[in-house]
Amino acid sequence: MTPQKISHIGIAVQNLDSSVRWYQEVLGLPFEGIEAVESEQVRVAFFNIGESRIELLEPMSEESAIAKFLAKYGEGIHHIAFEVTSLPERLKGLAEKGVRLIHDQPKPGAHQMNIAFLHPKSTGGVLMELCEPMTSQKKE
Amino acid sequence: MTPQKISHIGIAVQNLDSSVRWYQEVLGLPFEGIEAVESEQVRVAFFNIGESRIELLEPMSEESAIAKFLAKYGEGIHHIAFEVTSLPERLKGLAEKGVRLIHDQPKPGAHQMNIAFLHPKSTGGVLMELCEPMTSQKKE
Repeated sequence: MTPQKISHIGIAVQNLDSSVRWYQEVLGLPFEGIEAVESEQVRVAFFNIGESRIELLEPMSEESAIAKFLAKYGEGIHHIAFEVTSLPERLKGLAEKGVRLIHDQPKPGAHQMNIAFLHPKSTGGVLMELCEPMTSQKKE
Repeated sequence: MTPQKISHIGIAVQNLDSSVRWYQEVLGLPFEGIEAVESEQVRVAFFNIGESRIELLEPMSEESAIAKFLAKYGEGIHHIAFEVTSLPERLKGLAEKGVRLIHDQPKPGAHQMNIAFLHPKSTGGVLMELCEPMTSQKKE
């Protein structure tokens, strides 16, 4: 039940276009594309780094959780995501250990992943996402 | 000049022992050990995840940058580190592009790495570390 890898680091930004340029041109990360996630009211830019990704998150409206994060903390790291196996069973196990879950069932996320967030009150101040490729779940 | 991988995510904690237990027993990450870095007045616990590490950082004194971070923000993600090649040349290139560097020359860090930090004012609010294995530098 060891997490497999860092899936991604999610970073809240005010202006996606200028941040994409910075990560691409200054830091030198390969840009993979932009996806709008209407349900979360967020535009996400993806960069590859090794086996992981950097995700830049720009709010599409004031209702977005990212807009609220930016208003409170400014730009910066929003969450980290670990890729795991057996996500539903793992969430059940975490709840039994007293971890507060934002999602007690996996929900569909970007990149054909099922995802669930753990509450930062239970993780030492870190907003953590667990994710599992949909294909690996179907095989089980 | 593409960064190779996420080297680690550094997380500031109040109590290293209880946080180590949580990451090991609740999250299920393999614990690698603890190192005291006297120069930074910090105790660091390492966990393996895929090709990367999680580093938990506990201040050893009030002078530690981690103590100041905890006083200001509480527990949470402190920095992210990317493994790169040609660190000295890269720092020079970043400075030429107007990036504010905390270290304009690499300095020795944990795990036989040379490291340098970029200032969050230049990176969109993210404290970024670049690191390069000492062995890879010697080969060049």
